Amino acid sequence: MTTTTSAAGTAAARDALRAQTIELPSWAFGNSGTRFKVFGSPGTPRDPFEKIADAAQVNAFTGIAPRVSLHIPWDLVDDYEALARHAADHGVSIGMINSNLFQDDDYKLGSLTHPDAVVRKKAVDHHLQCVDVMRATGSKELKLWLPDGTNYPGQDSIRARQDRLADSLAEIYAALDDDHQLVLEYKFFEPAFYSMDIPDWGTSLLHCLALGDRAKVVLDTGHHAPGTNIEFIVAQLVRQRRLGAFDFNSRFYADDDLMAGAADPFQLFRIMHEIVQADVLRPDSGVNFMLDQCHNIEAKIPGQIRSVMNVQEATAKALLVDAAALDAAQRAGDVLGANGVLMDAYNTDVRPLLADLRVEQGLDPNPMQAYAASGYAAKIEAERVGGAQAGWGA
Amino acid sequence: MTTTTSAAGTAAARDALRAQTIELPSWAFGNSGTRFKVFGSPGTPRDPFEKIADAAQVNAFTGIAPRVSLHIPWDLVDDYEALARHAADHGVSIGMINSNLFQDDDYKLGSLTHPDAVVRKKAVDHHLQCVDVMRATGSKELKLWLPDGTNYPGQDSIRARQDRLADSLAEIYAALDDDHQLVLEYKFFEPAFYSMDIPDWGTSLLHCLALGDRAKVVLDTGHHAPGTNIEFIVAQLVRQRRLGAFDFNSRFYADDDLMAGAADPFQLFRIMHEIVQADVLRPDSGVNFMLDQCHNIEAKIPGQIRSVMNVQEATAKALLVDAAALDAAQRAGDVLGANGVLMDAYNTDVRPLLADLRVEQGLDPNPMQAYAASGYAAKIEAERVGGAQAGWGA
Amino acid sequence: MTTTTSAAGTAAARDALRAQTIELPSWAFGNSGTRFKVFGSPGTPRDPFEKIADAAQVNAFTGIAPRVSLHIPWDLVDDYEALARHAADHGVSIGMINSNLFQDDDYKLGSLTHPDAVVRKKAVDHHLQCVDVMRATGSKELKLWLPDGTNYPGQDSIRARQDRLADSLAEIYAALDDDHQLVLEYKFFEPAFYSMDIPDWGTSLLHCLALGDRAKVVLDTGHHAPGTNIEFIVAQLVRQRRLGAFDFNSRFYADDDLMAGAADPFQLFRIMHEIVQADVLRPDSGVNFMLDQCHNIEAKIPGQIRSVMNVQEATAKALLVDAAALDAAQRAGDVLGANGVLMDAYNTDVRPLLADLRVEQGLDPNPMQAYAASGYAAKIEAERVGGAQAGWGA
Amino acid sequence: MTTTTSAAGTAAARDALRAQTIELPSWAFGNSGTRFKVFGSPGTPRDPFEKIADAAQVNAFTGIAPRVSLHIPWDLVDDYEALARHAADHGVSIGMINSNLFQDDDYKLGSLTHPDAVVRKKAVDHHLQCVDVMRATGSKELKLWLPDGTNYPGQDSIRARQDRLADSLAEIYAALDDDHQLVLEYKFFEPAFYSMDIPDWGTSLLHCLALGDRAKVVLDTGHHAPGTNIEFIVAQLVRQRRLGAFDFNSRFYADDDLMAGAADPFQLFRIMHEIVQADVLRPDSGVNFMLDQCHNIEAKIPGQIRSVMNVQEATAKALLVDAAALDAAQRAGDVLGANGVLMDAYNTDVRPLLADLRVEQGLDPNPMQAYAASGYAAKIEAERVGGAQAGWGA
Repeated sequence: MTTTTSAAGTAAARDALRAQTIELPSWAFGNSGTRFKVFGSPGTPRDPFEKIADAAQVNAFTGIAPRVSLHIPWDLVDDYEALARHAADHGVSIGMINSNLFQDDDYKLGSLTHPDAVVRKKAVDHHLQCVDVMRATGSKELKLWLPDGTNYPGQDSIRARQDRLADSLAEIYAALDDDHQLVLEYKFFEPAFYSMDIPDWGTSLLHCLALGDRAKVVLDTGHHAPGTNIEFIVAQLVRQRRLGAFDFNSRFYADDDLMAGAADPFQLFRIMHEIVQADVLRPDSGVNFMLDQCHNIEAKIPGQIRSVMNVQEATAKALLVDAAALDAAQRAGDVLGANGVLMDAYNTDVRPLLADLRVEQGLDPNPMQAYAASGYAAKIEAERVGGAQAGWGA
Repeated sequence: MTTTTSAAGTAAARDALRAQTIELPSWAFGNSGTRFKVFGSPGTPRDPFEKIADAAQVNAFTGIAPRVSLHIPWDLVDDYEALARHAADHGVSIGMINSNLFQDDDYKLGSLTHPDAVVRKKAVDHHLQCVDVMRATGSKELKLWLPDGTNYPGQDSIRARQDRLADSLAEIYAALDDDHQLVLEYKFFEPAFYSMDIPDWGTSLLHCLALGDRAKVVLDTGHHAPGTNIEFIVAQLVRQRRLGAFDFNSRFYADDDLMAGAADPFQLFRIMHEIVQADVLRPDSGVNFMLDQCHNIEAKIPGQIRSVMNVQEATAKALLVDAAALDAAQRAGDVLGANGVLMDAYNTDVRPLLADLRVEQGLDPNPMQAYAASGYAAKIEAERVGGAQAGWGA
Repeated sequence: MTTTTSAAGTAAARDALRAQTIELPSWAFGNSGTRFKVFGSPGTPRDPFEKIADAAQVNAFTGIAPRVSLHIPWDLVDDYEALARHAADHGVSIGMINSNLFQDDDYKLGSLTHPDAVVRKKAVDHHLQCVDVMRATGSKELKLWLPDGTNYPGQDSIRARQDRLADSLAEIYAALDDDHQLVLEYKFFEPAFYSMDIPDWGTSLLHCLALGDRAKVVLDTGHHAPGTNIEFIVAQLVRQRRLGAFDFNSRFYADDDLMAGAADPFQLFRIMHEIVQADVLRPDSGVNFMLDQCHNIEAKIPGQIRSVMNVQEATAKALLVDAAALDAAQRAGDVLGANGVLMDAYNTDVRPLLADLRVEQGLDPNPMQAYAASGYAAKIEAERVGGAQAGWGA
Repeated sequence: MTTTTSAAGTAAARDALRAQTIELPSWAFGNSGTRFKVFGSPGTPRDPFEKIADAAQVNAFTGIAPRVSLHIPWDLVDDYEALARHAADHGVSIGMINSNLFQDDDYKLGSLTHPDAVVRKKAVDHHLQCVDVMRATGSKELKLWLPDGTNYPGQDSIRARQDRLADSLAEIYAALDDDHQLVLEYKFFEPAFYSMDIPDWGTSLLHCLALGDRAKVVLDTGHHAPGTNIEFIVAQLVRQRRLGAFDFNSRFYADDDLMAGAADPFQLFRIMHEIVQADVLRPDSGVNFMLDQCHNIEAKIPGQIRSVMNVQEATAKALLVDAAALDAAQRAGDVLGANGVLMDAYNTDVRPLLADLRVEQGLDPNPMQAYAASGYAAKIEAERVGGAQAGWGA
């Protein structure tokens, strides 16, 4: 191995790491599962306030997760000012607003693409409600994942659904304020099993291009066909200035929604390498780095902490890549040399560096141990008895 | 095209088609869905009796679906004699007994492979209960699909789980009566997302070989890695005399559980071709041809009728393959000729032949239309108001 | 089953089938194989004239394959007028000109995207040569498949390669005549095994949009990730008016290049259904329907005949879809009904219809048998002794 | 992070690493490529003696690659005693003998499974020749990868090919000496594109079980369906005492044959973790750890050095797993804790440890740099001018 980075390089890396933020999904703190079973667990939040309190724990121990994404209608409350104050009291703020197009009985055959104009209007109107929440919370981003699609060949017209989708999206986009942004997610399959109406980044991007400058693509790392080179898509979307956000999670098979970095840490590193190379890690880059995952069997708060740490470690490694040496080897056509420069950074143990940064910020160097020792889990298990636990579908 | 079959060939095909039976899953008549949403629909059965009544409709219009598979505990009743009589009154009988290892809170980290011996015992004991149901219903086959696995590398020992599984299965097998058979299913992934404890036919077969002659493999057509040649597995299991049953359904992506033959009718034909060539279509072959699917968005009874018809059509085509011509071309190394013989049969429109067979049996030639015209759907929608609809998880 | 089409519908279908054409690749008549072995066979063409003579056989027996695509440099000749006359004498004409970016030693690390400007210029210049061939042959379409990519993470900059590609393509596009069109192919993987520089339709389309109106996307049916819904991409590209051409072949695993329709005839039907629904089957639609396949083990001329017939049969079935009934069922949300309308057409045996059309045109109703009986295979096997057989890499 | 291993644990790890050996394939030093192009490079060996000399360089700089696998007929020589002496003079020895069933014109439709008994006999006889080479070289293992399969449904009988395969293998097995072992490889697809005759570990194992105790399975890490959990197969084969050998390489898509550990270093670590847990890393375990890869674009000798180092690093990390802590967390059902123990080892930078071990053995701590500085590459480029370069197909 070689010393991959100069002292100056490390200083820049430390600065970048200090500035990095990761947004948390409120729903990760509720129960989730598979179609076969959703397991409950003691201490699960029963309302948006408790979800935010839990999310704040992740920030308290990692120091880089200061925003919480809301999901409407799951996180509907009467008083958003109170919710925002509650968040601030816990050291975090409200992030993106996520709409929901998959849990209403009317959406059985689609929402924004439904053959029936009445259903489409309902789905569009739901986004107007979300925009109201944005105004109430100060959120600037509306995130839209479209579950629409068909299960059987012939069930509906692929083409007609695209046209309807374009119309529905245009109505939503028109309702945004000037400082609002729409981020549009794509997904390879599920819940539809024959055709998805936004199955890939190309489709999402085409709709964004048609909408305008404030429409960008969301890349969920679990939403691709087997073998897809995700970092290529990252590079392409950044090149088009249309990468709006990540939904980080990991997968071995489908949209498994495992903890980010758990299934393929090298892939996560390669993704962050594209981000760093393109200089869009900076907080003002317009890219929102968010988690979206399901802690089906593991404890939720430490599951989020681990995920945040995994993204942070991948970022640190990406920041340690010797860019000059890499560029030189690439230009020289030195296949093994260029690969070696990248791998040198990947093979570096960045945990001491990150522990050091935490201490510098007054945090415990080991967030997992510190959270475990904090007694928070026992506290919420004792306090949150009775009431309906939050979860997918609630 | 050429005339693919002699008159004698067709007569044999008609005989085989008259003898063919397909078993229906009671749970297909209840509600099912994805992790995102289970849509309800009017007329959904509320108990095992109503499920059997619905299944009987499929048989009434197709004439080849005379058995209904039960799922325990979903289909637990107080009086199995009454249930069997109810089935007989409706022209059908009770088929296999399917155990359930995925809906108990204790099974979060596994059932038959769980690290904790107490949980394993509970899971084994559940099968003793199933054997009791077999005795009460006269069912001779116990079907076991193991949802066990892990979500994260390191979560548990892959090897230790195999050893525990072998022990648990041995206990269950020992509890069977001499005329009982255990059929063991495998699945590539879901609900576990890192390792499944029975992920492939090889693992299922190894456990069956260790158990004894009355243990056989269940092949669910949706439980394989992308690109897997399923008919090869059929041929291999038949060659080992260990193909116990099919769970027919179809898929484009994962375990989509779409109607059999809906996603890839040519694959279904190739599977049935292996069955016909190996002469295990016969009712006494020991292979149980069963459906296992989820009608998430389509009407359930006609969804089952269509699936049964799709299997029947694939079978009819397989029976029309000119075996002598195929064998001659294969032995001669005539690649295009041999493929052509197979495709000739596949390209044949067998719907007139099957319509004719139905008329011969006193059935309507068009089961879909006949069911639609029967008024049964309206009747159950009117009658089955109130009560809890049956479904996955109920 | 129901009668799916009115008499008028069938008449329109017959008209559309009479007008349909499929372009053949000259290289399909040469030897091809895998990295493990290329098997030779007697009678294989030794030059472009013999390839065209063989391609003309396919047209002679099917009546719908009147053009032959050339591949440069494989099909370089001294006198293109003589080649065009030779084609005309055999009843066919020269179709698209395909460039080659994968067989020069300089292209080891890329061609249009190579880090070295000298290599990029060489690759661009090769296309100027191709444009000269277009002028000499009257061909109007330049087809470009880019094999460029990297094998190892870090080997080269994904982003920089996109930028270089955009520049190289712009130079090529600028060299086209006003009535020339550039069609740009994408491929998921192979020959590069980590990143392809045009891996998906989105990337190809972005480059086409940047180039101008006369740049369109080529869809090779074997160039996608497992599970990709290809007909969705067809619909999307048609919607963008950017579908330039098909490379038809079929696959079970990777880019297997098997005969079109051999692996998944239902998929081919669904693709042709999108084509028919969007009314781009017409010869003046701007979409070139071409074959691109490798007859590694089967005889080449009958392999092409079978492929052409498979595309024709899929087209005929697509033309028989009862569009009005389909639309009505789709609008009504009748999942099973809509799927049933599509399947009715797919399940129809269209071979009698196509045989009838052939007889009408003075052709033998059975092209495979007629070719086999023609003695052409024996003739070329006897005549083409000595010389180097054409093939990939020659 | 925590200190993952005690001093004693590290000492045991160091002992295990000192004992580890990796076998090299002679063919990795010849040219290889894709079906599109094989690029040559200066200095490529022209005969088996030069291949062994190159392989010996890998051992000279890494200290753990003391054996070279031969491939027959590529490595046929007149005097095996001379070849063995040549190897010994270079500090290495002859390892496994690999047969070739894919490059003879007669094998177009199969070898051991061919419909024609004459071809099958030829393929069986080739193995008798290989056994002679084993006797001449002292090799104890015959490795057989079967490329046989079909490209089109119906082309041949799946079942009949299994029967023929069983017969052919029985003849080969009968020809082995008592201290010989047969290791049998499986592959998902390629060069056959519809059905492979040994597509999966289950099929390979069934044939091994039928043959006898000295038949074992070879696991090539690139020969699986997308998403396959390879470490599960490792665990299962070890549990059956039938894991004979690895062919290490890596892949993003198909059988890409990239350098081991290049595509998914975490997967390689998980595989080595199963090996270490089952205590079959020991040299006397009967498992042969071998590389099998294609250096299409990178330099071959350093490509092998890097691969060996990647396997060694994965092994070192696997040896650092705190087995007691892992077991405790697993038994306690501590999902995050158990995963964390595994990841602690994976995240450790083992390069200093391995550098230290090399120095201890008198080697340079950095094999890549040391080889680059050795001048060997320039030397062979100068010396090996003229003659035919070795490669696949030669």
